[in-house]
Amino acid sequence: MSEPLKIALLGAGVVGSQVARILDEQAGELEARVGRPLEIIGVGVRDVAKERPGIDPSLITADLEPLVEAADVVIEVMGGMEPAGSLVRRALTSGTSVVTANKELLAENLAEFSSLADASGADLYFEAAVAGAIPIVRPLRESLVGDEVYEVMGILNGTTNFILDKMITSGLEFDEALQQAKDLGYAEADPTADVGGHDAAAKAALLAGLAFHSDVKGSQVFREGITGITKQDIEAAKAMNCTVKLLAVASINGDDVAVKVHPAMVPLTHPLANVSGAFNAVFVTSREAGELMFLGPGAGGAPTASAVMGDVVTVARHIVRGGSTPSSSNYRRRRVSDIGASRTRYFISLEVEDRPGILAKSATVFATHHVSVQTVQQSYLEGLERQDGFSARLGFMTHEATESDLAAVVEELRAADFVGPNVRFMRIEGS
Amino acid sequence: MSEPLKIALLGAGVVGSQVARILDEQAGELEARVGRPLEIIGVGVRDVAKERPGIDPSLITADLEPLVEAADVVIEVMGGMEPAGSLVRRALTSGTSVVTANKELLAENLAEFSSLADASGADLYFEAAVAGAIPIVRPLRESLVGDEVYEVMGILNGTTNFILDKMITSGLEFDEALQQAKDLGYAEADPTADVGGHDAAAKAALLAGLAFHSDVKGSQVFREGITGITKQDIEAAKAMNCTVKLLAVASINGDDVAVKVHPAMVPLTHPLANVSGAFNAVFVTSREAGELMFLGPGAGGAPTASAVMGDVVTVARHIVRGGSTPSSSNYRRRRVSDIGASRTRYFISLEVEDRPGILAKSATVFATHHVSVQTVQQSYLEGLERQDGFSARLGFMTHEATESDLAAVVEELRAADFVGPNVRFMRIEGS
Repeated sequence: MSEPLKIALLGAGVVGSQVARILDEQAGELEARVGRPLEIIGVGVRDVAKERPGIDPSLITADLEPLVEAADVVIEVMGGMEPAGSLVRRALTSGTSVVTANKELLAENLAEFSSLADASGADLYFEAAVAGAIPIVRPLRESLVGDEVYEVMGILNGTTNFILDKMITSGLEFDEALQQAKDLGYAEADPTADVGGHDAAAKAALLAGLAFHSDVKGSQVFREGITGITKQDIEAAKAMNCTVKLLAVASINGDDVAVKVHPAMVPLTHPLANVSGAFNAVFVTSREAGELMFLGPGAGGAPTASAVMGDVVTVARHIVRGGSTPSSSNYRRRRVSDIGASRTRYFISLEVEDRPGILAKSATVFATHHVSVQTVQQSYLEGLERQDGFSARLGFMTHEATESDLAAVVEELRAADFVGPNVRFMRIEGS
Repeated sequence: MSEPLKIALLGAGVVGSQVARILDEQAGELEARVGRPLEIIGVGVRDVAKERPGIDPSLITADLEPLVEAADVVIEVMGGMEPAGSLVRRALTSGTSVVTANKELLAENLAEFSSLADASGADLYFEAAVAGAIPIVRPLRESLVGDEVYEVMGILNGTTNFILDKMITSGLEFDEALQQAKDLGYAEADPTADVGGHDAAAKAALLAGLAFHSDVKGSQVFREGITGITKQDIEAAKAMNCTVKLLAVASINGDDVAVKVHPAMVPLTHPLANVSGAFNAVFVTSREAGELMFLGPGAGGAPTASAVMGDVVTVARHIVRGGSTPSSSNYRRRRVSDIGASRTRYFISLEVEDRPGILAKSATVFATHHVSVQTVQQSYLEGLERQDGFSARLGFMTHEATESDLAAVVEELRAADFVGPNVRFMRIEGS
């Protein structure tokens, strides 16, 4: 029997315990696929006192650095910036391949880690860091590497997708839908990372970097969460035959890259509109391949572990057979464009007095700031919605415009005496 | 400047000309991605007299063997069994990596080619052979290699998907829809390969082999085309909240693999039901990852060339950096099960006399052959449909049963004196 490959597993939580289980249950199958057995030489944790169901207690250790140094492959699923960052750096520097699911860590350090990996000949794989079990990192890094990607658009956070679904199907306000998500275990006690769009922004940075061969950090991603979405926004979207999704959008913008996470109206005819509940999906537009979509579970221990294990087999095969995949793909060095220069379509809703000339005055505001209007809908307000003489609502759908021009329109409308205080806008994607 | 990698391009048709264009237009980008320039040293064709728009005439040659021998990478997009097969064999035997889009060739020879590649250390990549630009070969070979796939189900032929769509949306009979597909250039003058399911069967064999680590040949795939589908079948599907798709289904069946291509009823709620027109899609169910779907253009020169070029960059990187991906993954050696042992659900429609006891007699036929009925619907026939005293139609939806038990039911019903001659059945998938 050939000598086992030594695996250091960092982290014994939801994902780590599933990785340990698969390595145990599928040992024979994995050996056949790799050509050598895979053996966990230690499970590194910060707190050895904590109980770890399903993990052999004799493997648990808090001596993380010696564990990493003894390994052929490091699996990092402990999360957080430290000590994960130092351990990954140590492994890559010494030529030890790393598989990680740590999106926060990668979103700030991918360029550095890639350089370390390429300098030492180590592999750095991270399929599980974006969109859970959906193979999207590998298609972008390898399948589409002979093509030119124009745009990557995704639903990358299951919690917010669940909450928005609830608002749409049950007519709930945000707070009510969030509470349901908490009750069902889909949202954490502190849901900020999800509903604020931080989780999606880290993933968007990774996708943008891969798709456009540039260095994009999570902190450079324009980010707007879903906490401000109201029942009125949802109703407006429905009236336009759209749904509302928290989207991550990364696209070529001239020589730059635009990377944004925000709620958006998506036409019901777009494939992303039908992605419901805890599912994730990524929609890719490229020069040669056209439109591709990838759909699957975006989170969960077993699906994430599946993605981790696919990477583990690949790097293990490289060790057995030689070779590695280049990590540094940021040779294009595109800059992240200022959000103001980013272009998309918009829906703007405002309340006005119902008298002649108001529509024209409103439309003039758009024209002044070079925002071209595609359609306008007028509806009449009733009951509680009708306040202070503002008895009609105008819904403008625009052609593509820059964020800065749109912001100027919204600012001027908010200041106008013929417009009520409730001026709302939402980006439209996928049309 | 580093020395170029020498590319032999075999084939100058729809795909070959697009590959040549991308290699030319994206030369700088591809060099950055690979680390060395890629240079076409010759374009091999069978008929040098034919005009090849977009291809440098000085590169055209019919001396195929010397071209292959001089190359670092062979791109085979000429199609057909010979001379493609001999040329691929020659390349792989001598350690030259091959990228091919030739599904017919691979569906009969993948196991042999893989062994040749592994023996010489060459790479064999074929993303473009299945589902055009959709990355599905790589996810099955690499992303899901740490998981266990249970079932792969796909819409793998755009022509038949277009024809069935037409029948469903416009109420056409098969011949009329086929004519429209021909008029629009979606079907060839001789449409047998598409409508007979041969094209989908070759792709199904490749997917089954990859997913289940076994040797599956196209000729072993159970195959039923769409030529027998009638307006009545479509109406029956609609009445059951289903659509009709030509599906390729490969699944674990005990220790064996079941691989089938046939028209099937698919519930409208299933993601595959919404894949329309010339799109392809593959739906994968695995032990750890759960359900994944991949969607995109299934054919066309540019999309197929995108898939070819992704593979070319990968094998070129292996040449520059060392390493290769193991091709032989048929170590599980699962057998392809007899179609009779394959299990699924069925819809059976029959015409009967409208008198007491007939439903019971019909149901007894199912019970006799161990086929469990889930629902029965009775409708009354009018006008032309009503013939020879058979005035009612029964629609049976079954639980899972084997093909051989179902065949016995259909045979007995066809022979029964209380049943009219028009006994039809269709498999139900994705429910």
